[in-house]
This record gives sequence, C-alpha cells and structure tokens, in this order.
Amino acid sequence: MIELIDARSLILKTVQKTPVILKRLKETLNYVLTEDIKSDINYPPFTRSKMDGFAVCSKELIQVSPGNPLILEILETVQAGVNPNFPLKSDQTAKIMTGAPLPEGADAVVPFEEVSWQGSKAAFTQKITTGQHLSFEGEEIKKGQLVLTKDKIIGPGELVILALSGKEKVKVYSRPRTGILVTGEEITDVGKKLEKAKIRDTNSCMLAGQVKLSGGYPVSLGIAGDKKDEIAGIISSSLPELDLMITTGGAAAGEYDLTEEVFQSVGAEILFRRVAMKPGNYLVAAQKEGKFLFGLSGSPSGAFVS
Amino acid sequence: MIELIDARSLILKTVQKTPVILKRLKETLNYVLTEDIKSDINYPPFTRSKMDGFAVCSKELIQVSPGNPLILEILETVQAGVNPNFPLKSDQTAKIMTGAPLPEGADAVVPFEEVSWQGSKAAFTQKITTGQHLSFEGEEIKKGQLVLTKDKIIGPGELVILALSGKEKVKVYSRPRTGILVTGEEITDVGKKLEKAKIRDTNSCMLAGQVKLSGGYPVSLGIAGDKKDEIAGIISSSLPELDLMITTGGAAAGEYDLTEEVFQSVGAEILFRRVAMKPGNYLVAAQKEGKFLFGLSGSPSGAFVS
Repeated sequence: MIELIDARSLILKTVQKTPVILKRLKETLNYVLTEDIKSDINYPPFTRSKMDGFAVCSKELIQVSPGNPLILEILETVQAGVNPNFPLKSDQTAKIMTGAPLPEGADAVVPFEEVSWQGSKAAFTQKITTGQHLSFEGEEIKKGQLVLTKDKIIGPGELVILALSGKEKVKVYSRPRTGILVTGEEITDVGKKLEKAKIRDTNSCMLAGQVKLSGGYPVSLGIAGDKKDEIAGIISSSLPELDLMITTGGAAAGEYDLTEEVFQSVGAEILFRRVAMKPGNYLVAAQKEGKFLFGLSGSPSGAFVS
Repeated sequence: MIELIDARSLILKTVQKTPVILKRLKETLNYVLTEDIKSDINYPPFTRSKMDGFAVCSKELIQVSPGNPLILEILETVQAGVNPNFPLKSDQTAKIMTGAPLPEGADAVVPFEEVSWQGSKAAFTQKITTGQHLSFEGEEIKKGQLVLTKDKIIGPGELVILALSGKEKVKVYSRPRTGILVTGEEITDVGKKLEKAKIRDTNSCMLAGQVKLSGGYPVSLGIAGDKKDEIAGIISSSLPELDLMITTGGAAAGEYDLTEEVFQSVGAEILFRRVAMKPGNYLVAAQKEGKFLFGLSGSPSGAFVS
C-alpha cells in the first residue's frame, strides 16, 4: 500500500513527455505549450484612441474655458484600420474613431460629447490632460516580452495572447494516446444481448470520457477475457503505439496477481500495488520504457476514482 | 443598462432548444440528455460474489467452531462470466471468483483465507452471516427505475449509468452551432502580415475556445470590415444554419449603433443593449425566431467576459 501523494510523485518522476507537434492556433485548445512565447510586436502596435472623438494637441487647449473657446478646423475622419497620412497643425483637429491610430501632432482625444461642432469647425471649452483617452503603443506588451511560459495549458485566455503574439502555429505536446482495455469473461459490450452471468461494459466509455476531459486521446482496445496470454498479447502489440495504458478488471484483492503477472510478463516494472484511497485502492501501476500501465479495478466506482 | 441576472433570465426565457439527435454512447460526453433514462435490467443483474472464496449455505455453518469444523466437498470453480449449472447440496461447496454468479443452494461466500482446504475437501470453522460478501440482484438499481433525468449534462459518471442501462444510442440535443463573426477594418488574420494601423484578430480563436468549452460547436464566419451591409449580409445568409450568432466589434459606447442597426436590419428584435458588469458591459443582445444574436465589444477582455 502506497500513500496517494507518494504514488503521484512517483508517477510524475517517471513519466515521459509525449512528442512535440506543431498545430494551427485554432486547434490548440486544452493542449500543453512546449515553448516559451515572446511577443513579436508591441501591443497595442500603435497609439490609438479609446473613444470616438477629436484628436487634439493638448498644449493648444491650456487656456480654454467656456468663455474662451478654441476653434479648430476639422480635418478628415480617422477610421480604425486606416493610417492617417497627415500631421495635425496647431489650428487643426481630426475626428477619430475608437481603435484608430492617433495622427502625428496629436497627443489626446476629446470625446464628441464634450465638443460643440458644426460643419468643419469644432469649439473646445474644457481643459484636458495630455494622453487622455489614448492607449499607447506597447502599453500592454513590449516587443520581445515573455508572454507565456512553456508547460502552460492553453485555454481561451492563452489563445488571445498567442494570437496577439502572431503565433499562427504553436508547438504543443501531443495528447497522450491512452489505451483502454477492459478485461473479464463476464463483460459484455453495451450493444450486445446480456446473457446470464454477464454484466455490461460500463468502464470503456467512462474511462474514455475521463481521458478526454484530462486532455488525453483515448484508444479503445475492446474487451478481453481473463486469459493472461490474450491480455499480454494485446498490451504487447498496442503499447508501442500508445503513451499510456489502462486496464480494468483483475486488480482486486484476491485476484490482483492477474494484472501484476500480465504486466510483468510484458516486461514492465511494477511501481506499486495499492494506493491509500477508497474506493479505487486496488490499483497496479507499472512502467515500461517510461510508459505507464495502470491496472484498475473492474468496479465502476473503483475505476472512476483511480 | 440591464442587470446581469435579468439579462440571463431573459435569455433563458427566450432560448430555443436545439434539434434532438441520436448519438452512439461513446460520443455523448458533454452532450445534454433529452430523455429520461430507465434501467432495462436489475443491477447487478444477478446475485454475485464480492470476493474470491467458497460459496456456502449459511445455515449449514451454524454449529461450526475451531473444535468442530464442517468438511464440505469442493465442486467445480465458478468463474466470473460463467453461469453455474448445478445446485449446491448440503455437503457441498464451490469455489467462486469475484463477480461470479452465486450457485443455487448457496447464500453466502467465505473468503479463501478463512478456510482450510486440500484436494477436494474444505474445512469451515467460523460462523458466518447469511448473505455475506454478496452483492444481490437489483441491489443498486431496480429494473424500470429512473436512473437519469433529461436535461442532464453527460459526464463520465453518467456514461457509466447509460452503459449499465443498456443505452447503446442516446438522444441528446445537438451542440448549438455558434457563428463567430469578427468585425472591424483594423482586424488582420493572425497569419497575415500586420500592416500599419491594424491589429491582429485575437477574438476568433478565443471565442471558438469558449464556445467549445461551453458545449457549443463554433462556426467561424471570418473577419468582416465595418460596412453595415456586408455584416448584415453575412448574418442573414448564415443565421438559418446556426443556432446562435456572436459578433465582435461595433458594440462599444460611441459606436454601438452599428451592431444594433445591423441586428435590426436583418429583422432581429433588440433585447438589451448594456449589461451591468465590467469589463464586458457593452453587449447588444437580440433575437430572431428564437435564435440569439450577441454583439460583443471588440476588446479581448470585454468579449472574453461577455
């Protein structure tokens, strides 16, 4: 019997990493990053407006008040996505939309609702702060900055950062291909007629579900009987193409020799036999060339917890 | 501005269910059940042993003690999966393996370690309880019993119950096909060169990830500019094949008329414009024939929270 925490650390010490693959960004949800990610640009990539309003040079507005307005000539409107190809002169302003780049000569934005304007003239009456309503180039991320570290699981937030950093393809660990083999003469496929003395296979689908939820790739190896040779044959022939192997059945008290013998007969080294938890304490763990073999109890609740 | 809780209840009141589909059990993880499930069998389907040991008739062992053993003749071994075709007589016992059906005439199991045996004779010296180490037919589930109710999300535990109940195919709601349309002249595909005044599309992958994690099926509708006609055209032509539609961009303060106008121009009814949360308060929600349209802010953090 081994404590759960020791079993876990033994596994983590022995486990081998799966191969590194290059995947398109949109397919990397729930994969694990294998590389540190640095941004290839400043973000925002240019200084831009956070409001719809007028781009102005703040020092021109130092003296204004409701009794002393500053009248500026309105140049064209700067749309988001369009680079303004004019510098603002001191008697000029430009309409600017949210997300649009600030024109040269401007250093602040005044929202539309704080300005009176008509035709090509805008009247400013309120003092403003330099830089107001702007988001500055590199304010959030500097070019070359480390934005994600390897071994991170990619969730929606990480997808944003990877997209920001221009990573169209991302290096990730392939999902561990996990073989699932259900053993026991009494086990019947769910779709087949249930004969006397038989029970239905409740473990294949459940374990495949747990493997998927844990980020693995389940590989169903079907249902085998109780014959050691048959089970060992399936394990030997499938293990080279797997990263991990789970069997159920043949791991309970009186009979756990079965799984243990089978694992040994395929050349695997037994790591531990029982874990201090309940249910799920009957669990044979072995490893062969860094690949894990787990022999779980046939009972659904025991297998579920393990 | 609408409170978050009111927004949610308005959505739940309006939302239409997606079509019901029949899926193979192994493909139903994270789907939502559309039918109540009743078991078609007792579970366990027969009374079986929980240990490896000897099947006995308990009343024969009433008088035994270490000084007064009862010697029984050992019949064949009952394996799991094999129906015993013999009744035990009063001077007989049978070896029985974990999971094997109890032979007729027996009503308890004595574990191997509590019995002395040699050849075809076994000596019992300890009193036992009727029914010990047995799991009885129908002990966990009765035939016809309601085991799962509709609208349940199918996780690994539900897969066990569905398998137990013989559901090889399961009726579930199809995953909501969720169109994702990113708008804004400044948005550039992550794989493309980032020109001046442009920013990368951080929202497509992130929203597709969130849709997947929520059990939906993301449908990328690409990137559109700021033209109302273009956006309305994409929505009109894709909505019939979708259950839900998400747009980003054009929903912020000064510009939220854009999304609202577009939604109205395709014949959708506006439900609310802003929600009391931050970030993500800029959110236009509309519905057309029970299908929802959500116009999110273009800012990744705002879109993420909405």
